[in-house]
Amino acid sequence: MSNWEAFLKNYINSEKLGVFFDFSEIGFSDEFFESMSAKVRDAYGNMAALESGATANVDENRQVGHYWLRNPNIAPTPELQEVIQSTISHILNFARDVHSGNVRGPRGVFKNLLCIGIGGSALGPQLINSSLGDHPKMKPYFIDNTDPDGIDRTLGNIELEDTLVIVTSKSGSTPEPRNGMLEIMNRFESEGLSFQRQAVAVTSMGSKLHNQATSEGWIKTFPMFDWIGGRTSITSAVGLLPGALIGVDILEFLSGAREMDSWTRMRSENNPAMRLALAWYKATEGHGKKDMVLIPYKDSLADFPKYLQQLIMESLGKEKSLNGEIVNQGISVYGNKGSTDQHSYIQQLRDGINNFFATIIEVLQCRDGKSLEVEKSITTGDYLHGFSMGTERALSANNRLTLVISLRKFNAFSLGLLIALYERTVGFYASFLGINAYHQPGVEAGKKAAAEVLALQKSILEFLRKNKNKLFHLEEISAQLGSSTDKKLTFKILEQLSHNGRSIERVAESDAIENITYKFIE
Amino acid sequence: MSNWEAFLKNYINSEKLGVFFDFSEIGFSDEFFESMSAKVRDAYGNMAALESGATANVDENRQVGHYWLRNPNIAPTPELQEVIQSTISHILNFARDVHSGNVRGPRGVFKNLLCIGIGGSALGPQLINSSLGDHPKMKPYFIDNTDPDGIDRTLGNIELEDTLVIVTSKSGSTPEPRNGMLEIMNRFESEGLSFQRQAVAVTSMGSKLHNQATSEGWIKTFPMFDWIGGRTSITSAVGLLPGALIGVDILEFLSGAREMDSWTRMRSENNPAMRLALAWYKATEGHGKKDMVLIPYKDSLADFPKYLQQLIMESLGKEKSLNGEIVNQGISVYGNKGSTDQHSYIQQLRDGINNFFATIIEVLQCRDGKSLEVEKSITTGDYLHGFSMGTERALSANNRLTLVISLRKFNAFSLGLLIALYERTVGFYASFLGINAYHQPGVEAGKKAAAEVLALQKSILEFLRKNKNKLFHLEEISAQLGSSTDKKLTFKILEQLSHNGRSIERVAESDAIENITYKFIE
Repeated sequence: MSNWEAFLKNYINSEKLGVFFDFSEIGFSDEFFESMSAKVRDAYGNMAALESGATANVDENRQVGHYWLRNPNIAPTPELQEVIQSTISHILNFARDVHSGNVRGPRGVFKNLLCIGIGGSALGPQLINSSLGDHPKMKPYFIDNTDPDGIDRTLGNIELEDTLVIVTSKSGSTPEPRNGMLEIMNRFESEGLSFQRQAVAVTSMGSKLHNQATSEGWIKTFPMFDWIGGRTSITSAVGLLPGALIGVDILEFLSGAREMDSWTRMRSENNPAMRLALAWYKATEGHGKKDMVLIPYKDSLADFPKYLQQLIMESLGKEKSLNGEIVNQGISVYGNKGSTDQHSYIQQLRDGINNFFATIIEVLQCRDGKSLEVEKSITTGDYLHGFSMGTERALSANNRLTLVISLRKFNAFSLGLLIALYERTVGFYASFLGINAYHQPGVEAGKKAAAEVLALQKSILEFLRKNKNKLFHLEEISAQLGSSTDKKLTFKILEQLSHNGRSIERVAESDAIENITYKFIE
Repeated sequence: MSNWEAFLKNYINSEKLGVFFDFSEIGFSDEFFESMSAKVRDAYGNMAALESGATANVDENRQVGHYWLRNPNIAPTPELQEVIQSTISHILNFARDVHSGNVRGPRGVFKNLLCIGIGGSALGPQLINSSLGDHPKMKPYFIDNTDPDGIDRTLGNIELEDTLVIVTSKSGSTPEPRNGMLEIMNRFESEGLSFQRQAVAVTSMGSKLHNQATSEGWIKTFPMFDWIGGRTSITSAVGLLPGALIGVDILEFLSGAREMDSWTRMRSENNPAMRLALAWYKATEGHGKKDMVLIPYKDSLADFPKYLQQLIMESLGKEKSLNGEIVNQGISVYGNKGSTDQHSYIQQLRDGINNFFATIIEVLQCRDGKSLEVEKSITTGDYLHGFSMGTERALSANNRLTLVISLRKFNAFSLGLLIALYERTVGFYASFLGINAYHQPGVEAGKKAAAEVLALQKSILEFLRKNKNKLFHLEEISAQLGSSTDKKLTFKILEQLSHNGRSIERVAESDAIENITYKFIE
């Protein structure tokens, strides 16, 4: 087969939606499609069941409803249809009120938007902002961690008086947004401002956060649903509310997602999400044997690889299959943007270890308006396209697998297309693997381990406080806490406590651990 | 060996520098160290030769001098010592002049700093800014790509009148910064401003850019040297100039790097860079068999993994060994920051495919000043530490390899420590592999392929222009260009040209490629 025939056979496009896929360098064969046909059939079946309201997240006994968010008509009950539709209306009305000053701060129209949230509650809003927030109606800031320094840095740049705060936490009990919220409330209080008159919550009905927001009289709350996971929440209030507030056309965004949903629902050879899932399977042998490198040649998509890193790795990185077998699945995902990354790690991609497949995302229309020619008949944008096509060719020439997604132009609609494309692909691929793409049991292990650390820290602090002004070596403290205590952890906690003004004086006579002493002082 | 004994045996620390390493979960054994002893000896020898001026970058016939930058005394000639020292003085004086208004813009003191550069010329300044630029003396902006949209977005937010521009390009001929510069010069002209009175260059003596800056009378030029690679240029004028201008204490930064250099130059079991290089070798079996995941638990280090992605992958990702054997080496590197990433891909790290080793970077002092307690005796910072220690434990418990680097506090000095640590580690590790860490032959392939794309684009445009107002199908254009022309590439170029106002009218009657027509119109 010639290069051109291979291209025609592996080209999937929609003139209507303005999106074009080239899978010709993945190495598909008729035998491969044949061998996958049962898996493909099952994946369509599983997806249809999911969309019609099956308990697709079996481990957590939940429905999976992100496709309903852009097309409420397909939600399985009238109640769900109504709450999805009314949430969108509430968001649009609220954004209008904030922009017009109907909802306002203590000295007028809100100028800043401070988003507190982690995981999907940060990555979704951050992606919408970095990709579409060129001329934001409000200046957005993010607190997406429990780093005190980071909080101080962010707050160092904001006038709180002019700031509307969104606290996003589905359960309302995740420590990072809870801590961020408490730090911010404290700052509001110390500046004599009323937090509840400048705050809205996005959370589940009945959560701790919901109860707090309601009882304290916050401006408003917007719903999260137990049938939406954090990593697929960008088309829920989690992404739409900050999007609308900074001025993004969220209806266009939803429309792009809805159009891609319609396309990728079809049992067809030209279903781009199914073809993409098959490409992942082919490239990684269905066992994550190659990393996925994502290179969007567009500055506004620079955060998209990080967004997909969560969507893909948290969905696919699973220990067990739905049957309970140990499978240790996943695909590692990384990337930033081209052509910038050509001057970073593409040296390795081209010449080094062949442990990846690359997805190049390009946007045909390079800018609004005409471009300067930097050489005769060549613009800055021609260079960008030249580099993306050149990279694809240079990689393919060295037997590195590549695929290309092209968008006619980049805007809210096409971001919606991309989001829905990858959500569907993840769902299909998880079906191929026979895993649950919608839970995250491994996240609990880290939380539990952290709780153990904090519990030991309390014991250490209590012991030292009780024996204040006395000098102790690690050995002594550790012995006092009992033989089952982890000495290494005790040491690390002591080191941390004594560098943070927690009334613990530390003297290190040398680099040797046995010579360090700790003392609680008042 | 108990957990505690293993810890003591694998703990490397310096109270003086405030940096602490825990290699106890890497699984080192005496046998492993034994097996590596000849490689270790050679690596020290190679490094000593490099530092004393050997042609360590053999393929490009160049010296490798980034260690001299922080300690001019060890540079091999008095001339080099002098130029390094005087460059630092010139940078400090220039920054003082800009801040005081001695060097000023058309309406007063420069408020903005626009940095044009790609690769190391972007990642270094960006890292310095994002990690240390809390309260910048000038507001920095970056153009690190040839994306017209991205340039428009950046310029949309800047008052050029108040802007000092740095163009950084070692050779002066890399297309991305050249294009960025031309776009910016065009904007200056259209606003009636004089570019050369607001621009400085960082480039090699005698480069095209150097000649341009000199002949046009730009404010000043600062030198790049052929013995400095882009990915190790952060302690040269490339990083120091923007650092000093935004107000970073560059002498402290250099001091941290110099101190780490002194430590990691020593042939000692307690050399942290050698131990880190051994950890990479152990974890990846010397063949990149595991990815390196970097998780700094500190917002200000969020860009550090991206910086290291370049330093490590571009240095180690090589096709051939120094002997000319095909080795296809490298280590894939990714990561953002903790605890944020715990809500992203750590699900996969803990439960999924075991294809990585994790480096956790933590900072003991969590903030300046006291912290709010978010629970009894627990602060926001305790949570951050709890999560980092918890993640290490949760990963180790599942047989995922981890190592931990702790800094007493984060500042310019400790960023210098980290940079020098990783530069040295890369050098040692490359010596283990027998590869040249200091060239990037694979980058040329992409550039060459891009040049071919642009050449074909010119031919296509010329043909259509010559036959203006005539309709053509792809088949016809392709046939006209000759049988050796790549039809797929021709199609992709036509698609791009016809979406960018390049006088090409495109009509697509359906989704089928054979029905698309193109026409050059005036």
